[in-house]
Amino acid sequence: MFAGVGGLVLAAGKGTRMHSETPKVLQTILGDPMLSYVLRACAPVCEDRLHVVVGHGADTVRQAFPEWEGRFVVQDRQLGTGHALATALPVLVAAGYGHVLVVNGDMPLLTTDILAGFVAKALEMDSDVAFATIELDQPGAYGRVVRTSDGVRIVEAKDHDPSRHGPATGEINAGLYLLRLSVIQRLVPLLRNENQSGEFYITDLVEMAAQSGGVVAAIKRGRDAALLGVNSPRELSQAEEALRAGRVDDLFDQGVLVRNPGQVRVGPRVTVAPGAEMTGPCELYGGTAVGAGTKVGSHVWIRDCTLAPGCEILPFSHLDGATVGPLCKVGPFARLRAGAVLCEEARVGNFVEVKKSVLGRGVKAGHLTYLGDAEVGAGTNVGAGTITCNYDGKNKHATVIGENAFIGSNTSLVAPVTIGADALIGAGSVITHDVPDGTLAVARGRQSNIMRKRPAS
Amino acid sequence: MFAGVGGLVLAAGKGTRMHSETPKVLQTILGDPMLSYVLRACAPVCEDRLHVVVGHGADTVRQAFPEWEGRFVVQDRQLGTGHALATALPVLVAAGYGHVLVVNGDMPLLTTDILAGFVAKALEMDSDVAFATIELDQPGAYGRVVRTSDGVRIVEAKDHDPSRHGPATGEINAGLYLLRLSVIQRLVPLLRNENQSGEFYITDLVEMAAQSGGVVAAIKRGRDAALLGVNSPRELSQAEEALRAGRVDDLFDQGVLVRNPGQVRVGPRVTVAPGAEMTGPCELYGGTAVGAGTKVGSHVWIRDCTLAPGCEILPFSHLDGATVGPLCKVGPFARLRAGAVLCEEARVGNFVEVKKSVLGRGVKAGHLTYLGDAEVGAGTNVGAGTITCNYDGKNKHATVIGENAFIGSNTSLVAPVTIGADALIGAGSVITHDVPDGTLAVARGRQSNIMRKRPAS
Amino acid sequence: MFAGVGGLVLAAGKGTRMHSETPKVLQTILGDPMLSYVLRACAPVCEDRLHVVVGHGADTVRQAFPEWEGRFVVQDRQLGTGHALATALPVLVAAGYGHVLVVNGDMPLLTTDILAGFVAKALEMDSDVAFATIELDQPGAYGRVVRTSDGVRIVEAKDHDPSRHGPATGEINAGLYLLRLSVIQRLVPLLRNENQSGEFYITDLVEMAAQSGGVVAAIKRGRDAALLGVNSPRELSQAEEALRAGRVDDLFDQGVLVRNPGQVRVGPRVTVAPGAEMTGPCELYGGTAVGAGTKVGSHVWIRDCTLAPGCEILPFSHLDGATVGPLCKVGPFARLRAGAVLCEEARVGNFVEVKKSVLGRGVKAGHLTYLGDAEVGAGTNVGAGTITCNYDGKNKHATVIGENAFIGSNTSLVAPVTIGADALIGAGSVITHDVPDGTLAVARGRQSNIMRKRPAS
Repeated sequence: MFAGVGGLVLAAGKGTRMHSETPKVLQTILGDPMLSYVLRACAPVCEDRLHVVVGHGADTVRQAFPEWEGRFVVQDRQLGTGHALATALPVLVAAGYGHVLVVNGDMPLLTTDILAGFVAKALEMDSDVAFATIELDQPGAYGRVVRTSDGVRIVEAKDHDPSRHGPATGEINAGLYLLRLSVIQRLVPLLRNENQSGEFYITDLVEMAAQSGGVVAAIKRGRDAALLGVNSPRELSQAEEALRAGRVDDLFDQGVLVRNPGQVRVGPRVTVAPGAEMTGPCELYGGTAVGAGTKVGSHVWIRDCTLAPGCEILPFSHLDGATVGPLCKVGPFARLRAGAVLCEEARVGNFVEVKKSVLGRGVKAGHLTYLGDAEVGAGTNVGAGTITCNYDGKNKHATVIGENAFIGSNTSLVAPVTIGADALIGAGSVITHDVPDGTLAVARGRQSNIMRKRPAS
Repeated sequence: MFAGVGGLVLAAGKGTRMHSETPKVLQTILGDPMLSYVLRACAPVCEDRLHVVVGHGADTVRQAFPEWEGRFVVQDRQLGTGHALATALPVLVAAGYGHVLVVNGDMPLLTTDILAGFVAKALEMDSDVAFATIELDQPGAYGRVVRTSDGVRIVEAKDHDPSRHGPATGEINAGLYLLRLSVIQRLVPLLRNENQSGEFYITDLVEMAAQSGGVVAAIKRGRDAALLGVNSPRELSQAEEALRAGRVDDLFDQGVLVRNPGQVRVGPRVTVAPGAEMTGPCELYGGTAVGAGTKVGSHVWIRDCTLAPGCEILPFSHLDGATVGPLCKVGPFARLRAGAVLCEEARVGNFVEVKKSVLGRGVKAGHLTYLGDAEVGAGTNVGAGTITCNYDGKNKHATVIGENAFIGSNTSLVAPVTIGADALIGAGSVITHDVPDGTLAVARGRQSNIMRKRPAS
Repeated sequence: MFAGVGGLVLAAGKGTRMHSETPKVLQTILGDPMLSYVLRACAPVCEDRLHVVVGHGADTVRQAFPEWEGRFVVQDRQLGTGHALATALPVLVAAGYGHVLVVNGDMPLLTTDILAGFVAKALEMDSDVAFATIELDQPGAYGRVVRTSDGVRIVEAKDHDPSRHGPATGEINAGLYLLRLSVIQRLVPLLRNENQSGEFYITDLVEMAAQSGGVVAAIKRGRDAALLGVNSPRELSQAEEALRAGRVDDLFDQGVLVRNPGQVRVGPRVTVAPGAEMTGPCELYGGTAVGAGTKVGSHVWIRDCTLAPGCEILPFSHLDGATVGPLCKVGPFARLRAGAVLCEEARVGNFVEVKKSVLGRGVKAGHLTYLGDAEVGAGTNVGAGTITCNYDGKNKHATVIGENAFIGSNTSLVAPVTIGADALIGAGSVITHDVPDGTLAVARGRQSNIMRKRPAS
């Protein structure tokens, strides 16, 4: 969008206030890591000129974003934002960028529009150091913007001293900068860490640039909550709610019927066709895609699934990594796991788990069943209590069932095993050998009835 | 309520903005079709003088309201509200009504009070054409009320032209009319469709009546949201929330304890006795009736069930079409389907499905069980993992169990089969033959223990 | 906190407006009885000088608070608050208290701070009769505070007569008193029940004390909702929501990540370590403790459980009375009941119920299983559909499984039975005899394949 403008996302921090082992930028929001929101917002602005500084949990962060490999700058010790910038500086200079947009990785509410507007404004003002400010009623730990007759500077909250800096206003530094690289290249080596944290601050560049005659621009964004960072569990929860509500609003705009909308949680990559319907509380995460006319009931949890048009997902269902064909009916109390593939009009009912299995067209598995590593032919009926015994303690084995077979209730299918088309398995059987097409197989004990004493009572 | 006033509900529209195959008036709100709300509100006002114009999906709508058969007027082509009225006119005239109350079928928030008040006011004003207006901040697509020195008229939003009609105000036509039949009979044939949609509008009758010297009354209803129609998924969701909140408020007034009330969804026909208790999120739909002292837990979904007093429905239960006797305990993770009948003090536990079965007094089916087409005598204990094998691929068969029997765990009961009173079935049996009263039956394989090499590790 | 100040909680009322058999003070709020909130607030103020008047359902109330036995005063007939006080008077006098703090048992929002502040203020004013007042827009059934030039008095709402008492203001009696015992001892016998209810009112003491020259103090608490009593299902629901919201706020302050916080219900005794995470809708009740880094998913119901650090509780799980070790994974669709103990890294999956059983380190029970009265050794794999047949209709029996055993799918373990370490059970077996260490056991029918006619179609 802006040739010559590189981007630098600061994603090295620990996020101490999160009280978590997880690096802060990997904390999830609606199922996706916080950093992914920032990268998504930045990408159209910086295109292939975007870099990410990682530090705390660097390996974990890199593994979470394999598609960004080659763009990471590792900051081994976390000595502050200024140090992060210094670490990345050689890369930015080598790339020959005129400016660099610096974004904190903990600002998941940022949008491309906000970033583009900020960059455009800063370029228009021909600034050497530009930063965005917002107004807060309770500025908390954010860096305070101090405006004097000499110009503007930023003072970290813990270093703010009313006797030196004047009374605190609500204007704070949002942590979003556009820096002219030629200027920064000169100033960054001069940064000092003589402050309460002993850290190097990017914010000091503001004063240094001003003192050396540079153009400093403090670009006001009013009270825009989208520029707020996430520093605590509470702020993460609030950001998540803001993003959630926005997603639901988008769904309404697209013609999706969202019932109980305050309790519908939809991740940023989920797509839903117009005419689909969902009822909260429900959750759709990851790369889930929902087709037209498909109904997602209340108390449903879905991640990374494809639901074809015309499906019905009944309450209390948990779908993760499944593919559900047109007109399928799933649940209530169904669990579809990774690799579950339901072809058209298949039916998976209550207390049924399907893992890494293909259910052909019209297959019914209605009750208390476990299908793992199985292929079930079209039209086959899988009775209540059927279990594919796919694991022998060391390896997983396959169960193959032909078309239009009938698996009697409470059957154990000891894999590897093949059940032919049109085969019929007697209820309660333990099937250990293959069953040819059109064959009836029974494997159960003989019944004995023994008269017993009636209970004394 | 008003002799001589007939009613006409307009229910022929497609509802394009719903992006759905379902005719708009069949879109559900809290489980009941939108049209049912309108009919319920109208019925006391118009008594047996109410007619319904159907068109888009006419057959589906008629099938959904069999009790209204004989009252439908089919509008084969949907050429606008004026055309719908024209289609119904012969029926209305033949019935000899003095006036006709015309109501849009997409106004689920209407109440009998509102309708009766409107009719009374219109009759009092001796109007020829009366319509209700409300004020909206964002009038959107609603017909605009244009008041001039010549009187009042309605202009469709898309035909509204400030240069001709003056600046748009927030006053809009709610789509609720009382029409004097003798006047309308004369005017309807004169309606024209020379407008942007090429449709015939009822709204034009207003101007036509005025021009021919009739009495026109635009009856203001202030900002009453109950007169808003449902034209989009968002509006449907909002109407549903308004009705839901009202229902919960009613329950409180009746002495029902509603915990987490914002997440309790109760349909319009559900009845709950004082002293019952429920915790959101939970849902009660259809003709469900809940007895005094009965507790419905969180994460419970119920439709068309009768719950006697003193029951407890534990979380994660799904009940549809079941009858639950006094002091029963159901769940967690129970599913009761159509025809499940639990007698007093029966107990259905986790991962248990009951379909079309009667469980006698004190029966316990606590774990991982499927009971279909079964009769279970009082006092019988159904062990974990019991499955009635009721389906042979073609037909369903019955399982009959006597009183005080004991069905061992993991038993398959291959129907048709009868288990006598006081019978005892050994765990893991596959029962294919009847078991007489007081008899022990076992049907399982003999155990072999085979020493095997210990794992190398 | 205040030597010489005894406490008296009035917990004898029926709570007619609750429409419930349960004594009002036993109605639960976030899973704990209402009375427990009041006792918890009072305890630090009155220490071991707190007494409780019980009456309606006295035995039930006493049984619910066994740790308070010895502190109950039984009011056999409920003749009003004054009568309750009269009943308790001998106990209070015998204890030699200087003052008594009288608190209604239906005020669950009370806090120790409020009570201590009230007592301190009343003592400071050296009052004989002090009571707290609050302002309400809709004073409803609360006793009205009538202030005249002669002083202040309280008139029950149903006895309030504007012609005698002046126009009703919004100031009401909160039902919180500090009474000087020497004064009260003299006045209580003079209480009369000549009013509309025929009851003896504590409130009359106010006027009587004033008339006999005592010091009366009406201590204003503004609009503090925490002094509102619970008299109806609606008020109970509102109090519950206020307490719930406060608990969630506390969790945020403690560094807990609460997603969808409006739908997280956490009882008053639940403890959650910083860095834990939970997603609404979920519920945590009783004495539940959640360790650091543990994640409680949406649609989870927990009571009286200990969750060690690093656990994951997946959606649709119901845990009641269980102990879950570090790094365990539970659910989705898991049910842990009383006495379920999961050691480190154990895994309980979907449609699995565990009751009174110990699962050793790393045990996996992933699918459709019932484990009751079992001990499962470390490293053992429990196959899908395994059922411990622990009940013979009369007694429960134990199943003991050694370490690193492999229980094939769909196995019935008929207890009492012992399965040795490293044993392997063939899928579909019914195990009725012990299986030694390292032994393979199989118990199932022989399979017959019978060619059958292909279906005609």
